[in-house]
Amino acid sequence: MNNDYPTKVSLFEVGPRDGLQNEKAQVSTEDKLHFIALLSKAGLARIEAGSFVSAKWVPQMADSKAVFERLPRQDSVVYSALTPNLKGLDAALEAGAQEVAVFGSASEAFSQKNINCSINESLNRFEPVISKATAAGIKVRGYVSCVLGCPYEGDIGPSAVADVTDRLINMGCYEVALGDTIGTGTPRKTAAMLEAVLAKQPATRLAVHFHDTYGQALANILIALQHHITTIDSAAGGLGGCPYARGASGNVATEDVLYMLEGMGIETGVDLSALVQASRFIADVIGRPVNAKVAQALSTQ
Amino acid sequence: MNNDYPTKVSLFEVGPRDGLQNEKAQVSTEDKLHFIALLSKAGLARIEAGSFVSAKWVPQMADSKAVFERLPRQDSVVYSALTPNLKGLDAALEAGAQEVAVFGSASEAFSQKNINCSINESLNRFEPVISKATAAGIKVRGYVSCVLGCPYEGDIGPSAVADVTDRLINMGCYEVALGDTIGTGTPRKTAAMLEAVLAKQPATRLAVHFHDTYGQALANILIALQHHITTIDSAAGGLGGCPYARGASGNVATEDVLYMLEGMGIETGVDLSALVQASRFIADVIGRPVNAKVAQALSTQ
Repeated sequence: MNNDYPTKVSLFEVGPRDGLQNEKAQVSTEDKLHFIALLSKAGLARIEAGSFVSAKWVPQMADSKAVFERLPRQDSVVYSALTPNLKGLDAALEAGAQEVAVFGSASEAFSQKNINCSINESLNRFEPVISKATAAGIKVRGYVSCVLGCPYEGDIGPSAVADVTDRLINMGCYEVALGDTIGTGTPRKTAAMLEAVLAKQPATRLAVHFHDTYGQALANILIALQHHITTIDSAAGGLGGCPYARGASGNVATEDVLYMLEGMGIETGVDLSALVQASRFIADVIGRPVNAKVAQALSTQ
Repeated sequence: MNNDYPTKVSLFEVGPRDGLQNEKAQVSTEDKLHFIALLSKAGLARIEAGSFVSAKWVPQMADSKAVFERLPRQDSVVYSALTPNLKGLDAALEAGAQEVAVFGSASEAFSQKNINCSINESLNRFEPVISKATAAGIKVRGYVSCVLGCPYEGDIGPSAVADVTDRLINMGCYEVALGDTIGTGTPRKTAAMLEAVLAKQPATRLAVHFHDTYGQALANILIALQHHITTIDSAAGGLGGCPYARGASGNVATEDVLYMLEGMGIETGVDLSALVQASRFIADVIGRPVNAKVAQALSTQ
């Protein structure tokens, strides 16, 4: 059986951006900064801290400039910003982002509805962003959404995911996070998708980004570990919700991922109880319970 | 990679017993019967419907006799009852239970605290129960608790689980359900435990019974599928809670298990939307939301 698991995994924390962006509550800059400080204190070394997009479209991220300008600089933590275009990149660079990210899709329909252009057009738009960031010594992460299903198209073929991932890496992304945006992925489909991508790019270039809408995230992450993927996106306290199924769960909770990895003897450098403190803080701020089974279990002991 | 999954899985529904027994609310006999009817309508063919134990210890199951006497008899559904001793067995037989179950532990400390005797003494006590049931043409299921950890002892060695499982099967149990009572199991430990048990007994004799206290159940079930286990215990709507971490999740939700199996193309004969109806009915009765991510996601669409 599969006992060949990685010895170390890098957790990429998306709570402050992907998480808070999909919560109804507007969180103050102060509270975001405190949340991010608690996350880094817990040992999370890669934190997506904001997004340089139009405040009209994403009001929750309107203060990303202020957040980035005030983040404490530490060699041990990399703060990442979502930058869909050159204007966003310039703003992110000016605010001191250490890493930026572009956001593509494996679904034509989702690309059209989400960013008003085809997959191909979106990649062409990212090209100057990636070049300019790279020239400035800033690493670029790629996201691919809808890798296991699309809210408009339904099933997405593994080869579509492999193609767009391959192009992003060839354009200069150091890593691509494969996102199950609607959380409908299950283990066999996850394996088939990963195998298609791994036929073009090594596991070291890939991250997985699961939403726990249907409770499938940890099982899918286990499949990713069995395929030697060593970077996992997650959000403290399961922040985020699902815009396509309101009231449902969002990003997989960092606590739940960490509990599994710790139990498997896989190193992350993250401290579970400090992480739960961060989740409790932000849950209080947005006024809802922590959406992580581990945090719930620990809080009742 | 592991693409060698079973084509069919049998879901063993424990909501009406293991689930309701650990909920605070007292559910009426009428409501239990309606819940069980909805479960069987959804296609669940094996349902643990009650427990013949002292009403003093388990008041939620005090009406098991009435429940069993009034259950509609259908060839397609087997109703099972927990019977810890001969007195319980006699009552279960009289009430028309088609299958009974005995409940052992892999942890000495848990056995002492839960049933006031050693593991060995408990097995000796089960012997006449198993013999008498078998002589009456009634199949006996065995449970082993604490297979991945004990609330009193902590870690439990895989060999202890293998030994007690082996003894129960050799005594006449047709199947043993391996229970992660406190939900602390993670995939690698699950694999090691299963491998120890499988060294003594075939997968066809085994079921897995996970609690989702720390969100690990589906990942562990995936490991069980990779080890060719084809019977999975679960509770509609995640009924049950965890007596060792109040407020936390209980049995893995049948909906979440079913969603994974369906996505993997594994047949169960159970209809997801009919199942969600059953979960919603009982959640309304006990006055709390359905504790299954799948049900939450579907209810918000």
